Formats: sequence, structure tokens, C-alpha cells
Amino acid sequence: MIEGSFTVKTIRIISIAFIWVIALSFGALNVAQAADHLPSWNDGTAKQSIVEFVKKVTQAGSPDYVPPAERIVVFDNDGTLWSEQPMYFQLFFALDRVKALAPQHPEWKDKEPFASLLKGDMKAALAGGEKAILEIIMATHAGMTTTEFETIVEDWIATAKHPETGKRYTEMVYQPMLELLAYLRANGFKTFIVSGGGIEFMRPWTEAVYGIPPEQVVGSSIQTQFELRDSGPVLVRLPKISFIDDKEGKPVGIHSHIGRRPIAAFGNSDGDLQMLQWTTAGEGARFALLVHHTDAEREWAYDRKSHIGQLDKALDEAKAKGWTVLDMKRDWKVIYPD
Amino acid sequence: MIEGSFTVKTIRIISIAFIWVIALSFGALNVAQAADHLPSWNDGTAKQSIVEFVKKVTQAGSPDYVPPAERIVVFDNDGTLWSEQPMYFQLFFALDRVKALAPQHPEWKDKEPFASLLKGDMKAALAGGEKAILEIIMATHAGMTTTEFETIVEDWIATAKHPETGKRYTEMVYQPMLELLAYLRANGFKTFIVSGGGIEFMRPWTEAVYGIPPEQVVGSSIQTQFELRDSGPVLVRLPKISFIDDKEGKPVGIHSHIGRRPIAAFGNSDGDLQMLQWTTAGEGARFALLVHHTDAEREWAYDRKSHIGQLDKALDEAKAKGWTVLDMKRDWKVIYPD
Repeated sequence: MIEGSFTVKTIRIISIAFIWVIALSFGALNVAQAADHLPSWNDGTAKQSIVEFVKKVTQAGSPDYVPPAERIVVFDNDGTLWSEQPMYFQLFFALDRVKALAPQHPEWKDKEPFASLLKGDMKAALAGGEKAILEIIMATHAGMTTTEFETIVEDWIATAKHPETGKRYTEMVYQPMLELLAYLRANGFKTFIVSGGGIEFMRPWTEAVYGIPPEQVVGSSIQTQFELRDSGPVLVRLPKISFIDDKEGKPVGIHSHIGRRPIAAFGNSDGDLQMLQWTTAGEGARFALLVHHTDAEREWAYDRKSHIGQLDKALDEAKAKGWTVLDMKRDWKVIYPD
Repeated sequence: MIEGSFTVKTIRIISIAFIWVIALSFGALNVAQAADHLPSWNDGTAKQSIVEFVKKVTQAGSPDYVPPAERIVVFDNDGTLWSEQPMYFQLFFALDRVKALAPQHPEWKDKEPFASLLKGDMKAALAGGEKAILEIIMATHAGMTTTEFETIVEDWIATAKHPETGKRYTEMVYQPMLELLAYLRANGFKTFIVSGGGIEFMRPWTEAVYGIPPEQVVGSSIQTQFELRDSGPVLVRLPKISFIDDKEGKPVGIHSHIGRRPIAAFGNSDGDLQMLQWTTAGEGARFALLVHHTDAEREWAYDRKSHIGQLDKALDEAKAKGWTVLDMKRDWKVIYPD
């Protein structure tokens, strides 16, 4: 009896131990589908359409099943993963760089767009349109090595604060999107950023903030040049545009960097329209979502005639094609992380 | 006593069960280091230096430990992962395309370099140097959508055979390198191709052949343009060079596509020199290897004055800097897969 009882009890205990171990081993996978991994999302069509899409492309045996290697998902950055008002955050970076570099450039006092910038008159500075922006970008983003620029960005992102919210810029990423990125990755998706912003402005911090490594960031770029210096090889940033990753450029950037068509795309403006067209034109199950900025209280409210992040044509096409339109005010419980 | 004995025995059994489970869990990791994952490599300095490097960057607690996210390794393709003689395999593809397209181009009969190509006189065709090669590439690689080009490459790679060996081109990949790629990935490395060859010529087959997905292939490229056709959006391949991923271009391509410096690089020619310089100039443990083509019997033997895959300056620098130089004849038991 002792031996018998011992054996039965032992088996039971070992069984329980093993079940626990197995449960723990598979937990990471199951939890992704079972528990709510999108706690900051209100129940509604946006959340529902995402979860349904993920289920149908990941469930073995589903007619819409997609192998993990092809689960490519792309996210715009400005206005989709973090805020973009009252202007793209990269312009705040450029402005701070102009201020920092001004002592070395006495001529800027009388030269637009720098003169207005230094007086704090952003509107006058940007009155010169694209040409003015290009001049500001080149003066602040070129002329150093890639390693030096990386340090400049890291220092800025760690200290600079948004003039209206007083938050660090990386504190103005969307908490529901952080959850969505993690949820997609837990379901075998490979998450990419495809942004009109500078690729080297994003890469130094996207891994820590979004869990997206540098090699999965696509963006606009300036040319770099290899030089063998006495101190060793460097890449020098030249004042020449290499690629603009916006509008028609987004599918080009996706094709160049990723080399296969995404099955899901998230954007918020007309600059993302072609990316969503390109993504949804592929065969099999596809998903496209537009973030609609509707929350003037917790974030900003803007769309058709906005000076930035304009959502006009893409909103019409979303309605015509049945893409998901997310309403920030209605669909998100919180906007920013605590 | 019964309870006491039960408790001790139970704890022991559960402990053993857990040790087994833990052992099994970590097995996948340990096996990679314990068993010989490079069976086609002869024991020698090349194999030894690779295994030592992998051990020191992966072993927790090692002063040279590198976190998995930073274990970026880059491989040249032509002459490093597959053969490149008597000319780059992509030129055989271009030649076959010229033949296939000739009926639509009667003017080619009297127009160089096409006239010589069609007569089978490769030497005369390439006498026009880079300009001739560019003309051939543009005539055969541009003017269709990216999807159409992908199909053309897939069809060719599945059927075309090397004129000397009679093998399919993908059968002329190096078996020891296939083992090395798998060994590195099993040790947490992310394997990339960084080749002077066309990025869209490689991507359709690198995943099946090397286990390297399209998004981890960097290469030379031509420009593409987004067009919204009645049938849907397409990317059209234009007859304009976008980027040459060779020599000084390789570190630029690495920086643009990967965004961080590799810790290990494998090449075989002067076209890889800057990639090896860039890789080894980073902080911490670094590894660089040159494949030296020394086996005239099983493959080809060539280096300093070769018309292709020239290994001259890089060989000198390897000796000066202590990079590993692999001797194909001595270091590899077999060249191609069975």
C-alpha cells in the first residue's frame, strides 16, 4: 500500500508538474490569442477587425492562413505610432539643432529660413515651403558621420520635451499601438516602420520604444559616402536627398527594403494611401487601417484640411474599399503610456 | 516516516523531472555548440577561428558577449556563397534574356553589344566594358513590373544550367557555407547577403536556397516607380541605376538596409574589402573571412589578376590585419551539395 500510494501520488504530482511546465512552455503562444492583449482598446469594430484578421491568418487550417515568414506588417510613424502636432517631431529636432549650431553660423542671422527660426517664428521660417524645409534639414542632418549623427539623435530624444505637453517625445507614442505591435509579434508577425521621416532619425530609438530593430525601419534618407580616414572607415552624411519615403515612395521603399508585399498596413494620412493600396492589392487576406485623429481633448483632432497629416483622399478610399478607420476618441481608452 | 520518505523521494523525482525538462528546453541551444554543425569543413584554422568567434560572442558571461539582436553577419554572394566563373551567373541570366527577347528586337542583329551576344561571342560583347554591361542589364532587367520580373527570375533559376558543369545554378552553392549559415542562425545570428548582384535577381530564391528571406538581402538595384493601373497598383522597373552595392557601396548598402554594423563579414574579392573594413572597425569582437579560390579541380583557382572576383588588395589587407583566409582546397571537404 505504501509503495502503491506512493506511486499514485508521485505520478499525480509529476503529472501536475509536467502539465505546469508544458502550460508554461506553450503559454507565450496561447496567451497571445486567449487573453486580451489590447487592454487599451475599447471593444468596437477597430479592435474586432484586427483580432479577426490575426486569427484568420494565423490559425492552422484556415483558408486565409499565412505562413509566419510572410506575416509582414507595416506602420507609418508620424500620426500612427506617435503624435505629429503641431508639427512633425523631427522638425523640433531640426529647430533645436539650428539653435545649437547658430554660434558657428553667424550668417544665419540674416538668412532665411534660419533667421526666422532663430527668432522663434516657425511660420515665417516654413513660408519658404519645401525648399526651406530642405535647407533646414540639410543644415542640421548632414555634414557629420553616421555615428556622430546617431549620438546627436540619442542625446536629443533622451532630453528634449514637447512644447505643449511637456512630455518627452518618446512618451507621446500611442499606448494602444505599443500593445498592437506586441500582439502582432506574439502572433508571428514581423513589424516594420515605413515612414516619411528620416530613417536615421528613427533608428536610434525604435528598438527601445517600439521593439522594432533598425533593420526593420524604412524611411527617407540622405546620401552617405564611405571614407577611409586615419582613424578608420566612416560613412559621411552628404547634403543630398537619396530617397523620399512618402506617398508613391512608400511602396518603392517597401519593395526596396523588405522585398515582399506586406499583408497588413497601418497609416493615418494621404501620405500612406499608396502603401495601403499596395498592401491590399496582394492576393489572400489583407488588412488596412487608418488612424483618424478625432480627439481634440486627449490628443489633436484633424483630417481633411490639416496642415500636417492630411487625411482626405485616403479617408474616401477607406470608405469605398472597406478599410478599417480607427476613431481615436471612440476606440482608444488611453492615448499615451502612463 | 512514510510522509518524510515520500516527501524526500517526491522532491527528488520532481527535481529529476524538472532537470530533464530544463535540459530539453535548452537542448536546442546547446546542441548548436556541442555537435559538429560544420561537417563539410576540414579541421583547420578557418573552421577553428569561426567556432571560437561564435563561442566567445554567444557565451553568457564572456567578455566578448554580444546580445542576439546585435549578432548581424553579412555574406557576399558571388564567389562567397556560390560560384562566379567563368562569369557572374547573373550575366548568364542576362544572356538568356537577350536570346528570349531577340525576336522582339530585330535591330539587335546589327547593334552591339547585342549582335555579338546573339552570335555567342561573349568576349566581343563585353569588350564595350561597363557601358556594354549596363546596356545589357537595362535591356533585360527593366521595362516590366517587379512582379513580372520575379516570375522571369523564378522560371530561369528553376531550369537554366551552367554551361560547364551542367548543374542548375542553385546547385552550385557551397555546401560548407550552407552549413555555416545554419550554424550561425542556430547561435542567434541574423544572416544577411550583401552582394554586388541585383537585389531582385537574388530575392526570389535566397530563402529556399540559403534560408535568407528577401528582407535580409542587400544588392545593386535599378529604380522602380509606383503606378496605379486599371488592374491595380504596380511597381515598374525603370532603366536607371539606383544603387551599386559594390566596394565603397557595400558599407553604404549595409547602413541603409540594416542600420547597424555587422560583427562578422564573409567575402572573396576586392569588392568586399570595404565591407570587411567597416565590419572590423566596430568595437568589441569582430570577425572577417575571405574565401580564397584555390581549387582548380573541384571549382576554380583564381585571385590577384582574375578577370572576375579579383582578390588582390583584400588579400594583402587580410594578411596585415589577421583576417581569416579560407583555402577552398584545404579547408572544404566538399564544394557543392550532393
